[in-house]
Amino acid sequence: MADDENDNLIAEIQRAIDAQDGSGLLAAAEDCHYADLAELYEHLDDEERDFFLKTIGPELATDVVAELPYSLIEDALNYFKPAQLRVLLGNLSDDDRVDIFQVVSEAAQVRFFSLLGPRDKALTKSLLKYEEDTAGGRMTTHVGRITADMTVKQAIAVLRRDREDAETLARIFVVDEQGRLVGKVRLRDLAFETWDTPIRDIMEDADEFVLASADQENAARLLSRYDLVVLPVVDEFHHLLGVITYDDALEILQEESTEDIEKLAGISGEQTELSYLNTSPTNHFRRRVNWLIGLGFLSIASGYVMFRFSATLEKAFVLSLFLPMVVAAGGNSGGQAAAMVIRAMALGELDKRCVLRIAWKEIRTGLFLGLALGVSMAAFITLILPHLHLTAAPEFSFFKLSLAVGSALTLQVLSATLLGAMLPITARAINLDPAVVSSPSLASTVDVSGMLIYFGTAAAILNL
Amino acid sequence: MADDENDNLIAEIQRAIDAQDGSGLLAAAEDCHYADLAELYEHLDDEERDFFLKTIGPELATDVVAELPYSLIEDALNYFKPAQLRVLLGNLSDDDRVDIFQVVSEAAQVRFFSLLGPRDKALTKSLLKYEEDTAGGRMTTHVGRITADMTVKQAIAVLRRDREDAETLARIFVVDEQGRLVGKVRLRDLAFETWDTPIRDIMEDADEFVLASADQENAARLLSRYDLVVLPVVDEFHHLLGVITYDDALEILQEESTEDIEKLAGISGEQTELSYLNTSPTNHFRRRVNWLIGLGFLSIASGYVMFRFSATLEKAFVLSLFLPMVVAAGGNSGGQAAAMVIRAMALGELDKRCVLRIAWKEIRTGLFLGLALGVSMAAFITLILPHLHLTAAPEFSFFKLSLAVGSALTLQVLSATLLGAMLPITARAINLDPAVVSSPSLASTVDVSGMLIYFGTAAAILNL
Repeated sequence: MADDENDNLIAEIQRAIDAQDGSGLLAAAEDCHYADLAELYEHLDDEERDFFLKTIGPELATDVVAELPYSLIEDALNYFKPAQLRVLLGNLSDDDRVDIFQVVSEAAQVRFFSLLGPRDKALTKSLLKYEEDTAGGRMTTHVGRITADMTVKQAIAVLRRDREDAETLARIFVVDEQGRLVGKVRLRDLAFETWDTPIRDIMEDADEFVLASADQENAARLLSRYDLVVLPVVDEFHHLLGVITYDDALEILQEESTEDIEKLAGISGEQTELSYLNTSPTNHFRRRVNWLIGLGFLSIASGYVMFRFSATLEKAFVLSLFLPMVVAAGGNSGGQAAAMVIRAMALGELDKRCVLRIAWKEIRTGLFLGLALGVSMAAFITLILPHLHLTAAPEFSFFKLSLAVGSALTLQVLSATLLGAMLPITARAINLDPAVVSSPSLASTVDVSGMLIYFGTAAAILNL
Repeated sequence: MADDENDNLIAEIQRAIDAQDGSGLLAAAEDCHYADLAELYEHLDDEERDFFLKTIGPELATDVVAELPYSLIEDALNYFKPAQLRVLLGNLSDDDRVDIFQVVSEAAQVRFFSLLGPRDKALTKSLLKYEEDTAGGRMTTHVGRITADMTVKQAIAVLRRDREDAETLARIFVVDEQGRLVGKVRLRDLAFETWDTPIRDIMEDADEFVLASADQENAARLLSRYDLVVLPVVDEFHHLLGVITYDDALEILQEESTEDIEKLAGISGEQTELSYLNTSPTNHFRRRVNWLIGLGFLSIASGYVMFRFSATLEKAFVLSLFLPMVVAAGGNSGGQAAAMVIRAMALGELDKRCVLRIAWKEIRTGLFLGLALGVSMAAFITLILPHLHLTAAPEFSFFKLSLAVGSALTLQVLSATLLGAMLPITARAINLDPAVVSSPSLASTVDVSGMLIYFGTAAAILNL
């Protein structure tokens, strides 16, 4: 895995930095992958960062800066003098450059823009049109581009000119005179065909493409579904604008998964791009405090229900033994259903037409789950509870208590499961984020419903 | 996005199936991507599936079968006669074939194996050595393979022979006479170099590789971290065995994310590979019932604490207003911390040495969060509660109540946050799955600790 070798290199760089050994640092850094250099950089203090950037210079720094968390990029760039910065910004691939322009301050944007060459200026401007999270905002314009009337020999000559520039030559796209996408060829077909074959004869249809205005997730899902290395991005007139590559898809899908996990756990706001350890407590606090206080106030509602039923509780304190369970069972079963549905939506499995199928599936699942839990607890109450010598003897039989608790559990699990599945779908139908909306609404609703169901069932069955 | 065109094709196939129109089905199926055909197949009933397989035949069925959820593969293969099956199994790429052998019944495995050609038999046998979730179990052996002493022209001749076989030619690997990995070249370098250049002069070091026995997640993370299209897989003597490609990485990382989300929500067992809608309620039930009942019994513990403190509650029923809140605040804040840490571990950000840094970070974050929530609620109690005309007037001042609730919340959030962060780390340290272990232990622990903290603080501050 080359991990040991890598660890050694990183250790060497760290030593060189500590010893202010410029040539040692440079030698080791040149052998190291820029992704590792970027991670190392994250862990340096300000002084070390300056020494690091000074030593590696703008050429090597280009790839490292492109891999940095967004929040560190502006400071890193500001370290360089204008002449160096001109080199660095010119070396960046156009999608990385646009990403950087999208995350730095407006003042920095203006300053960096003035350092670009005329071609890069025009290109950056046109790419900045697209929102950061669209296919257009994520694409690179460096793409192998030929026309159908070329021969293989001509095509290879054109591509040879662009070879270091193109992000990937795994797929080469064929365009017409207006630059509209008409087909694709594989580099291997060029490499192995006779030189006078016309491209027209070997090109295939370019069936998969994405609109520049489409959500980046759509693009990532197409790449993943069809196992593509490269997905062409077109405008509404089918002009080839650029490509999104498999590594973008990986990144996009990882970001989305992290986002969903965080939202399900009630963590708000944008991911910082900094790793967990490099995020400050203040920042962690900021992303968690809103839900925590919001959910806190919401749970006054279930406190209120409990308070109103204190008379019932006073008549039979043994009921408190199972109150937390009934409430928690709702949260657990609802949370399971919600997680299933949210993940299925994220994987693109559910469309708007299947609400009834989902509801029917969860009603059955919820009923089975509720019965299983209800029967288990009823068995516990009738078979085991009598032997535990509880101090407050109940004024009703253990059998009746088991009926009350069992029915309450069944009702609570059934309703919470259905609610957990329906909330994300409802949220999406009214264009809200499923993961964000469903966790808190679910938690507070099933807490209250659990209290009501429990006290209601107990009052009815036990005549309290 | 070609989505409309695709939807039309799928609709056409469905029509052809309904009308038993074989030639119409075949024509449409040939234009359709196999990933879409596989999804369509999932939704057909048994009779339709038979008609579908009969019509498209073993050649076209090869790619479709390879994309099917594991649970549907054996039935699909059993539809074909031995002669057809021989074609189909022979057409499969070797990694897909091994995947299939790993998921069908033993009887089917024996029968399918007998239909393989001698080369495929040997290959399948050697690949079956590797566990399904290792790099070796996931790799394909179809890889562009040349030696350093070839010229570009000789290399192209070798690769031309294998061109349709190799999974990808984006990277071509250079091996020595013993088949050990010594370098890599890019197809573009071959395509654009003069023909008499020796490979030795243009090859680069193959720094990134993975051991066949390594976890598939390691391989996926290397591919993702270093933006690789192809990662070579080697044995302990550095022999090149095969490659893992970017699309495997996508699949692996998606599976892992789904797994984490499910585990965090208390869903157990393996993903079925069937989509959510195609999974039966019985199956959904089976994956959710264990946690649900387990957590149910665990929550008897917090019920017991509540029961023991019924005397305290009886003296001041107003306390029940805030009991659910204190308990829930622990679950919420602990869940946030656990999700953060589990995701950071999944992204490979945390190693074993950083326990203390994590603890210190979460102690500060938890303290801030607890104080924020405690102060908010104390403010609510002193400023708003007095105006709500609650029926049970407290025997203590609202100020004292606010002190008790505020302190309990601070303590509960602080301890739950720390516990939520530490549980996944402890689980990993003793080789248990962090996501599986932490959700239930966290939920039940903070429920009990919340009750104890609340009643304890209330008793101390309010002299109950």
